[in-house]
Amino acid sequence: MTPMTREHALALDAADTLAPLRRQFDLPDDAVDGLIYLDGNSLGMLPRATAARVAQVITQEWGRGLIGSWNSAGWMAQPARIGDKIATLVGAGPGELVVADSTSVNLFKVLSAALAIQREDAPTRRVIVSERSNFPTDLYIAQSLCRQHGCGLRLVDTPAEIPAALDADCAVLMLTQVNYRTGALHDMAALSAAAHAAGALALWDLAHSAGALPVALNADGADFAVGCGYKYLNGGPGAPAFAWVRPGLVDRFVQPLSGWLGHAAPFAFDPDYRPAPGIARYVCGTPPVLAMAALECGVDTLLAAAKLGGMAALRAKSLALTRLFIDTVAARCAGQGLLLVSPDADAQRGSQVCLAFAGDSAAGRANAAYAVVQALIARGVVGDFRAGDPASGLADILRFGVTPLTTRFVDVWDAVERLRDVLASGQWREPRFAQRGAVT
Amino acid sequence: MTPMTREHALALDAADTLAPLRRQFDLPDDAVDGLIYLDGNSLGMLPRATAARVAQVITQEWGRGLIGSWNSAGWMAQPARIGDKIATLVGAGPGELVVADSTSVNLFKVLSAALAIQREDAPTRRVIVSERSNFPTDLYIAQSLCRQHGCGLRLVDTPAEIPAALDADCAVLMLTQVNYRTGALHDMAALSAAAHAAGALALWDLAHSAGALPVALNADGADFAVGCGYKYLNGGPGAPAFAWVRPGLVDRFVQPLSGWLGHAAPFAFDPDYRPAPGIARYVCGTPPVLAMAALECGVDTLLAAAKLGGMAALRAKSLALTRLFIDTVAARCAGQGLLLVSPDADAQRGSQVCLAFAGDSAAGRANAAYAVVQALIARGVVGDFRAGDPASGLADILRFGVTPLTTRFVDVWDAVERLRDVLASGQWREPRFAQRGAVT
Repeated sequence: MTPMTREHALALDAADTLAPLRRQFDLPDDAVDGLIYLDGNSLGMLPRATAARVAQVITQEWGRGLIGSWNSAGWMAQPARIGDKIATLVGAGPGELVVADSTSVNLFKVLSAALAIQREDAPTRRVIVSERSNFPTDLYIAQSLCRQHGCGLRLVDTPAEIPAALDADCAVLMLTQVNYRTGALHDMAALSAAAHAAGALALWDLAHSAGALPVALNADGADFAVGCGYKYLNGGPGAPAFAWVRPGLVDRFVQPLSGWLGHAAPFAFDPDYRPAPGIARYVCGTPPVLAMAALECGVDTLLAAAKLGGMAALRAKSLALTRLFIDTVAARCAGQGLLLVSPDADAQRGSQVCLAFAGDSAAGRANAAYAVVQALIARGVVGDFRAGDPASGLADILRFGVTPLTTRFVDVWDAVERLRDVLASGQWREPRFAQRGAVT
Repeated sequence: MTPMTREHALALDAADTLAPLRRQFDLPDDAVDGLIYLDGNSLGMLPRATAARVAQVITQEWGRGLIGSWNSAGWMAQPARIGDKIATLVGAGPGELVVADSTSVNLFKVLSAALAIQREDAPTRRVIVSERSNFPTDLYIAQSLCRQHGCGLRLVDTPAEIPAALDADCAVLMLTQVNYRTGALHDMAALSAAAHAAGALALWDLAHSAGALPVALNADGADFAVGCGYKYLNGGPGAPAFAWVRPGLVDRFVQPLSGWLGHAAPFAFDPDYRPAPGIARYVCGTPPVLAMAALECGVDTLLAAAKLGGMAALRAKSLALTRLFIDTVAARCAGQGLLLVSPDADAQRGSQVCLAFAGDSAAGRANAAYAVVQALIARGVVGDFRAGDPASGLADILRFGVTPLTTRFVDVWDAVERLRDVLASGQWREPRFAQRGAVT
C-alpha cells in the first residue's frame, strides 16, 4: 500500500471511517497553516471539551461550591471514576485501576510492591530485568529501589536478549510496552508468560501504548502496570498518571507512599495507617482536581471511538499510517542515508516511526538528526529528536508519532514530502538548526 | 478588643488597610447571599486571575504551542519559578524550594533524606518524634518509612511533652507547624534548636502556616520542610505541594523518588541517574502544568500583600480576626458548653479557632459537634468538623479558619451570631444535620 501520489493519501482519508473523531480536537492546524503534529506521543492535542470543562471546575465547582465540591461535584471519586474509564482501554476491569500522581511516582509504588512480594515468595531473586533503552525515568526509579532492596538492575541491549535474561535470579521483568526510542512493540503475553515461567513478575509501563493500541493487561498476564495521561490519552501537559495491579496481587502489599487518601477510612483521621482494600490503596495524596478534569476530557476522546470499532479500529488506522510513512520515506527519500529504526513488521511496531541516519551517509557523518528535526519544525512538521548514546551504541533518533484520532493520511504524505525537501535541499545545514535547547 | 456590636466589626473593616486584597478573589458571597467561608485552611478561595490564566495555558500554550511550550511558555521552569515565589513567604532563599507532587509524596522524599542522613551520622538514632494529633498523612508516611528503615514513631499527646521526647534515640522531630485539629502554633525556632541540641533533625510541615503567618525556615533553623498548595496559597483543589531542604543538607542525599526531571540533565536520556544539584533533585516526574499555573495565581495573591506589609501584616490581621472570634464566642455563646481548644494566647495560635463541647454540657452529651457544623453550613457559615478519637482522648472539633486576604471582621461577627442562633434555638438537633457523609 504505497500511494505514489498525494491524491492517493486524500482518498484514504475520504474512506476513513474514523475521520470524524478528529473533530473532537481543537486543532492547531486550524490556526497555524500547514502544521502537521507528529508528536502526540509526547504531548497529545487539546480536546475541544477541555477548556470549557476545566473552566466549569474552576469557576463553578471551586469558585462557588468550594469545599463542598469534594462530595457534591464528585471530586473525591475522580481517581476511581477516571481509572475505570482508562481500564476499558487497557484490558483491565472496573475497580482495578486508579489515576494518581505521575508515572514515575506510580512506578515507584508498583515496583516496590513487586519487589516486596518477591522478597517474601522468592527471596533469592534480586534482579530486575529491563532494556538499556527503556525510558530513563523507569531505569532511575528502578535504580533507587535496587539500592533500597539490595537488588540489581540487569539491562539488555536488544529485545531478543530478554528471554535469556529471565534466569533464577530474576525477580521482576520491567518493560515499557512500546519502546520510546524505537517504537518497537513487545509481545506482552509472551514475555509475561516467559517471566512467570522463570518465576518472575511482569511489570509494564504503558506510556506509549495506552490509547495507542489495544492493551490486554488481564488477558496477557501482566502483574503490574503504570501509564501516562499526557500522551495518547490527551490529558494535557503533566496530566496525572495511572496504576494497575492484578487483582490477585493488589491486597498482598501496602505500597510505601501510604498517604491519607489510600487509607481505608480517610475521614476517620485514624492515627494508624490501614490500607484501603484493592487498588484504592495506590492513591496517596489529595487528587489534583483541575488536572483530573482535563484528563477525563482526554480519555473521553478515546472512549468516543467505541462505536467505531474502539482500540482495534484505532490500531488498524495507526498501522496504516505508520506503514504509509515507512513506505513513502523509502520511496521518496531514497539515497539520503535514512535507516528505519522501528520494526518494519506491523505486528512489532507501536504508533511511531523512528529513523536514523546511516553513519556512512553524508547526513550521518554530519550528525544531522537534530538539525533535520529542527528544520522540519520550521517547516511545520513537529516530530521529536531523541539523543543517542554512543557509549551504548544508540543512534540519534528522528521520531514521528501518529495518533489515529487526529493524524490524517495526507498529513503523513505531506510530512514525508517536507522531509524530502529538507534533505534534498540541504536546508537542514543552516546554522540556526544546529543550536540545541532543551527538547522534550 | 471585644466589639459588642456589629457596627464595631464594620468599623474595623473600614479601617483595615489590607481590605483591598479581598478584591483579588472571585468571592462566592458575591453570588451566594450571606455565605461566610471559614474553611480557607482546607481549600482556599478562587483568585480572580485563575480562570483566565488556566484558559490561556489550555487554549494557547497547550492548544497552539503544543510540545514547544515546554520551552517557549516556560513550563519546564515552573517548579523552580513558583518555588522561588513561595520561598519568599516562608523565609527560604531563591533556588532552595521546588513545587512538585503532593504534600504526602514530598514528605516521603524529605523524611527519607532525614533518616538516611542520620543513618550515616548517628546510626543508633532510630526514632521519629511527632504528635499523635499530627495530620494523619504525615503519620502514615512516617509509619511507612519506619518499616523501611527499622525505625520507630514516638507520638506525644501534648506539645509540652516534646522536649522530653528528644532523647538520644531521636533521629528526626517531625511536626506540622500549626496543628490541624487545635490550631496550636509550635515555636519553630525553639523546637528546631531543641532538636539540634539533642542531635536530631527538624522537619516541618507548613500545611497550615505557609501563607497564613510569617515562616522563617532558614532563620529558625529548620532542616526540611513541605507544604500544601491548596490551603492558604489558594492554588485550587489538589494543587501541587512544595519541598524545601536546608542548603547545607540538600546535596547530601539522593531522595528515593528519582524521576527523570530531578536528573542533572534530563534530556541527555542517560540510562544512569545523576541527581541535579540542589533542590532540583526533589522534582520527580513531569510537572502538572495546568495545576502549576493555577497555583501560581494563588501564590501571587499573597505576594500582592508585599506592599501592604506582607506576611507580618497578614499575621496581625489574622490574629485580630481569631481574637475577635474567641472573644465574641465567649461573650455571645456563654452557657452553651463551648470550650476553646485553640490556644488563647495569640502568639501560640495559628489562623484558626477550634472549639469543642464540654462533655457535661447538653450539646456535649448529645455529641453535637458534627450537627452544629452542618447546621451552620445550612446557615451559610462554612467551617469544618474534625472527628475526635475517644481512645486518644481527642474531642470532636468545630474548626473555623480565617484567611486574612479575604475574611472580614464583620464575617466573624456574623458567623458567631449564627452559631449563637443555631445553639440557642436548638436547630442543630434537627435530624437532617446528623447524617454523616464524607467531610473534607
